Amino acid sequence: MVEPGSAALTERLVVIGGDASGMTAASLAKKMRPELEVVALEKGPWTSYSACGIPYVIGGDVSSVEDLVVRTPEQHRANGIDARAMHEATAIDLDRREVEARDIDGARTYRLGFDQLVIATGATPRRPPVPGFLDEKVHGVQTLDDGAHLLRHAEKIGADRVVVVGAGYIGLEIAEAFVKRGARVTVVEREPEVLAATMDPEMGARVRQAMERHGIEVRVGDAVDGFDGKALHTAGGEIPADLVVLGLGVVPNSTLANEAGIELGAHDAIGVDVRQRTSAEGVWAAGDCCEAFHLVSNRKVHIALGTVANKQGRVVGINVGGGYATFPGVVGTAVTKLCDTEIARTGLSEREATQVGFRFVAGRIESTTRAGYYPDAKPISVKILAQPGGGELLGAQIVGEEGAAKRIDVLATALTARFTVEDLLHLDLSYAPPFAPVWDPVLMAARKAWDAVQQERTFRS
Amino acid sequence: MVEPGSAALTERLVVIGGDASGMTAASLAKKMRPELEVVALEKGPWTSYSACGIPYVIGGDVSSVEDLVVRTPEQHRANGIDARAMHEATAIDLDRREVEARDIDGARTYRLGFDQLVIATGATPRRPPVPGFLDEKVHGVQTLDDGAHLLRHAEKIGADRVVVVGAGYIGLEIAEAFVKRGARVTVVEREPEVLAATMDPEMGARVRQAMERHGIEVRVGDAVDGFDGKALHTAGGEIPADLVVLGLGVVPNSTLANEAGIELGAHDAIGVDVRQRTSAEGVWAAGDCCEAFHLVSNRKVHIALGTVANKQGRVVGINVGGGYATFPGVVGTAVTKLCDTEIARTGLSEREATQVGFRFVAGRIESTTRAGYYPDAKPISVKILAQPGGGELLGAQIVGEEGAAKRIDVLATALTARFTVEDLLHLDLSYAPPFAPVWDPVLMAARKAWDAVQQERTFRS
Repeated sequence: MVEPGSAALTERLVVIGGDASGMTAASLAKKMRPELEVVALEKGPWTSYSACGIPYVIGGDVSSVEDLVVRTPEQHRANGIDARAMHEATAIDLDRREVEARDIDGARTYRLGFDQLVIATGATPRRPPVPGFLDEKVHGVQTLDDGAHLLRHAEKIGADRVVVVGAGYIGLEIAEAFVKRGARVTVVEREPEVLAATMDPEMGARVRQAMERHGIEVRVGDAVDGFDGKALHTAGGEIPADLVVLGLGVVPNSTLANEAGIELGAHDAIGVDVRQRTSAEGVWAAGDCCEAFHLVSNRKVHIALGTVANKQGRVVGINVGGGYATFPGVVGTAVTKLCDTEIARTGLSEREATQVGFRFVAGRIESTTRAGYYPDAKPISVKILAQPGGGELLGAQIVGEEGAAKRIDVLATALTARFTVEDLLHLDLSYAPPFAPVWDPVLMAARKAWDAVQQERTFRS
Repeated sequence: MVEPGSAALTERLVVIGGDASGMTAASLAKKMRPELEVVALEKGPWTSYSACGIPYVIGGDVSSVEDLVVRTPEQHRANGIDARAMHEATAIDLDRREVEARDIDGARTYRLGFDQLVIATGATPRRPPVPGFLDEKVHGVQTLDDGAHLLRHAEKIGADRVVVVGAGYIGLEIAEAFVKRGARVTVVEREPEVLAATMDPEMGARVRQAMERHGIEVRVGDAVDGFDGKALHTAGGEIPADLVVLGLGVVPNSTLANEAGIELGAHDAIGVDVRQRTSAEGVWAAGDCCEAFHLVSNRKVHIALGTVANKQGRVVGINVGGGYATFPGVVGTAVTKLCDTEIARTGLSEREATQVGFRFVAGRIESTTRAGYYPDAKPISVKILAQPGGGELLGAQIVGEEGAAKRIDVLATALTARFTVEDLLHLDLSYAPPFAPVWDPVLMAARKAWDAVQQERTFRS
């Protein structure tokens, strides 16, 4: 069966993937062009949900996975979007301008013509290429379906022994969640420190110490050899595991696009231009399946985050809706928490700066989130990286307690504005004793980085 | 007696005013040029303190005014600065390059030669020009000495009936402090809404409602006629008052400079150039006594805030110390809280924008500080003003609860970078459910402002 596309009177937009970026694009395009026929195919049962909330359902802060759903397929249909849950796109035919789809419940396959196509297929958790990692006790945390499976499994086993493989953001959040459930949690990380992909080692060490304070066993520098259904085997020994969670990051779901002949870009994510157009006419991509431009490194990157997905979806929606929008890019901002420890970063880490070829100086401070004399002033550690010479900002990292992490947004904004540390230290940031010391920790770190830039100048002159 | 200046072998810097800006300048200059002789004259007993903390001593969050002292005269002397508390500068003689000073405890007057001079004389609370406002029961809250007097008075009277005249930041903070002490508090404000000088009326209304919820009687649109020692007389009637606090803002202490022939600038504050130089050779000014450049209105303004004072003091210190530094200016950022209500603003309000001649559109949103499904997601209201046409950001205001106000810093940074609302809405701000919704409230407001800019375009095209 073929549902015809351009031959019909109305133009049809097909969206593959019913989460943040896809449904944002669908909703905006429909709002701007009510005559547009919009069909959205989602292989899972849910649409428009917050996958980032899964750890908080596991940990009990949020009562059910359904709470994470922003808009159901029914709600989308009420807005005039033909949202089809449990329908998986299996192929894209660019010549015939058709998508091949499988109705999973109805067990039938059909073809769907399109005039414009949005690919928003998301990403899939990385699995280590070692034996046993396809076992049903090994969980990824990417879709809401993943979250529901993990929760059911956790409830069944009582979550006695949990091993998290990979100490990235998801790894930390899942570790915290299972600690809250009363499980014994071990985190295994191949790198010599936690959060090695995003934070510098001395900042990562603070996070690891916080994990250990909360009873999480952290094994850094330990490689995974396999899982036998009862224990994880690593270079460092055997770790009993009733349940294993993957925290090794994700790979973009770009195979469908690639097989159709659409060009891939950075890290095998779908290549897009500034308007989120792929290499194929009338085919757009947004979200975790596609690349983004990094405004500090000036390179294409693959950063799978809900914020980026939403912004890219908005840009696609406006463009498909007949408007004009571009997505300028990202600066690599991320935030998470581990119990009472808040962790944030933006821009480039030392490792990333070096990879791009930058040299850098650092400014580091220890301060408090409020005036030191004010009740509940919490510790905050800020590190800023800047270029020697002109002092152009390169990146920043924060580890602290309540009120610390969101300060990273000032630094993300300053990076976007291409500020120097001198621009940064003059910023008119808000101050009152319940909110900050008179020199906000961000400004104090900027002063230290400025000192480092001056010393570098003196040293070299 | 004259302590000689330039005739001596070493160069002498005299600093008038021993608080934030003066002592920051003194300390930095001394650090950069250890051979410099530095004398600091402070008419009160304390140096380098946080006057902003006074309301929290009154309210009991901080145990004593001494806790607000960052560095005592003794500590400054240990750093090689001749810090003289209870010494008041009474005249500046630019021809002879001498300061006339009075040793208040020793009851003697002397003259002090200088090579360079820093004027950091601060500001004085405005008093309404009506009878009875010089009564000892009427308190300003500007110096730490003011704070100590107010605290002693409050302890003596039991603070039964307190009236605050003026509903600006200080007025709000003092009102909260006396509510915490169990006093019956009335705030009298001549303008039709609280915070009228800094917030738009509908945002001010939220703050007033919060004040009323906390049992503060708020009388807006009511002018003060006088104080008879027992009651405040206003257009609206008589208000019994055991204690009156001034919250009408401050006037710069620029008389000393003016009498010496130094030019005044905006609002009779001391005029300064980008390096904080006054019109007199070798004479600098910093802090609440001098003006600053407003980066949004492009006008000189007088904004008496500790953050500005510290930054200007740093710039003076570097320049006196033989370095080169400029103070680019302010964007008018301010923050405060009233019990659990947080209030922040930056840039221009509607009134200020209109005064400068700008037209504006507004974006307003109601959202939450965390993901809506996450525990303790608190309400936050954000308003953004932008120019029609290009969408250049003009200002922003936030009223909300825990975690709301500090978000103003992103907007202050964006204003400094001269961002448009489109630049703003693409910002790569941090997101995780415990910290923000996937569209941070700042970005949501930017989207609304962007919509308003688009509609204005459509309307006019």
